Amino acid sequence: MGRPLILVTNDDSIVAPGIRALIDVMKTIGEVVVVAPNKPQSAMGHAITINDTLHLDKVSLDKDLDLEYSCSGTPVDCVKMAVHEILKRKPDLCVSGINHGSNSSINVIYSGTMSAAMEAGIEGIPAIGFSLLDYKWDANFEPAKPFIKKITEKVLSDGLPKDVILNVNIPKLEAEQIKGIKIARQAKAQWIEEFDKRTNPMGKDYYWLSGEFVNQDQGEDTDEWALANGYISVVPVQFDLTAHTAISTLKKWNL
Amino acid sequence: MGRPLILVTNDDSIVAPGIRALIDVMKTIGEVVVVAPNKPQSAMGHAITINDTLHLDKVSLDKDLDLEYSCSGTPVDCVKMAVHEILKRKPDLCVSGINHGSNSSINVIYSGTMSAAMEAGIEGIPAIGFSLLDYKWDANFEPAKPFIKKITEKVLSDGLPKDVILNVNIPKLEAEQIKGIKIARQAKAQWIEEFDKRTNPMGKDYYWLSGEFVNQDQGEDTDEWALANGYISVVPVQFDLTAHTAISTLKKWNL
Repeated sequence: MGRPLILVTNDDSIVAPGIRALIDVMKTIGEVVVVAPNKPQSAMGHAITINDTLHLDKVSLDKDLDLEYSCSGTPVDCVKMAVHEILKRKPDLCVSGINHGSNSSINVIYSGTMSAAMEAGIEGIPAIGFSLLDYKWDANFEPAKPFIKKITEKVLSDGLPKDVILNVNIPKLEAEQIKGIKIARQAKAQWIEEFDKRTNPMGKDYYWLSGEFVNQDQGEDTDEWALANGYISVVPVQFDLTAHTAISTLKKWNL
Repeated sequence: MGRPLILVTNDDSIVAPGIRALIDVMKTIGEVVVVAPNKPQSAMGHAITINDTLHLDKVSLDKDLDLEYSCSGTPVDCVKMAVHEILKRKPDLCVSGINHGSNSSINVIYSGTMSAAMEAGIEGIPAIGFSLLDYKWDANFEPAKPFIKKITEKVLSDGLPKDVILNVNIPKLEAEQIKGIKIARQAKAQWIEEFDKRTNPMGKDYYWLSGEFVNQDQGEDTDEWALANGYISVVPVQFDLTAHTAISTLKKWNL
């Protein structure tokens, strides 16, 4: 094929340094179209906008690109609008990120970055979500770039297994400290939440969500292990949520 | 044990007839605590509120209940607040719904109802999401009630497989037309979106998401088949999204 058509989106908004870094890499690989949220949409999960209107603004943040849109919706809305409203043909690839912060283990479920990639996967588009383990706005995305290019080119040349997308997390390390890439499974981990309760000037209580990430899974085949040991983790992710092995157990219930 | 402690939530808001019907059933089974959104939160997926404050109001919509709270957050926020802020002990069960509208097949991913149940599952709480295939506000939830009671009591008596929750969908039928309950897998289906493009009084374009649900899966072991044939579908759902079978394929890439 000619140069692949690559849809780029994220959840930190179209002006985030992470998506600009991802666009830089994708321009070296194919023809890039950007459709990304006009405001931060972190932790939006697989939310879509059904009870409100959606707005789309053509912008030109990168002079090399012909098609760059800022969208009022969630990351999943951005993918739907790109595929069904903006693009004349299905993109060859969708990449989401680079997220400012980890989407490893259970975070995949809360992540707007990964939900955008998942939505592309549901549409039959090969998709990859990229996240850097540094939530700062001025995080250093440079060390990640050659690895992102390598993984992306491999997905374009070899394709992905059916109904599978990739969740790629990159440790916060200098380039020479990154040991390589590990294929991994999602670690079993969770957030132990604490709510920070405060009182507003009117005397009414309010709360901030404030949790601690706890990894209960010491497996060396997990994404958490890979990241803690200097590797980039690549987890194949599916959107069939059926717990197939539980079906026979439930059938014995004779409901 | 004594009467089980049951947390009830939903995504259609605390005043929706669906959650009131679910509370009615749960009161016949255990001690009920309600923490539900103060406004509709449909299609919120697994969104959580991290960049805004959360508010909690104690309400008394049902005089039989001691603990009923309206929360400004998403369905997932409601579960987190219930478990980590309101309740003194972990509930024995979390039920979410009854959703006004289907959460079968791929809808499980977009659903706030199911995300609340999934969050409870992540917290180690047995959880069930219930949905009726009627999106109307004045849908008839009566025929569903005995089936909801039966499934809930079975979960309480037998427990669920580890890290598995249930996605229960109920066809829009009279009680005598419901043929029974089928354990099923999530059908492979998707929404083919069309955006309804309009122009506002200021001359700016806006869009409404407007899709058509397409089921590509003719399997008779699916939730869609069960529902189309007069059965209640029960799909075991997991939150490990790893596509385990794809790991060996990706390892051959030698990234």
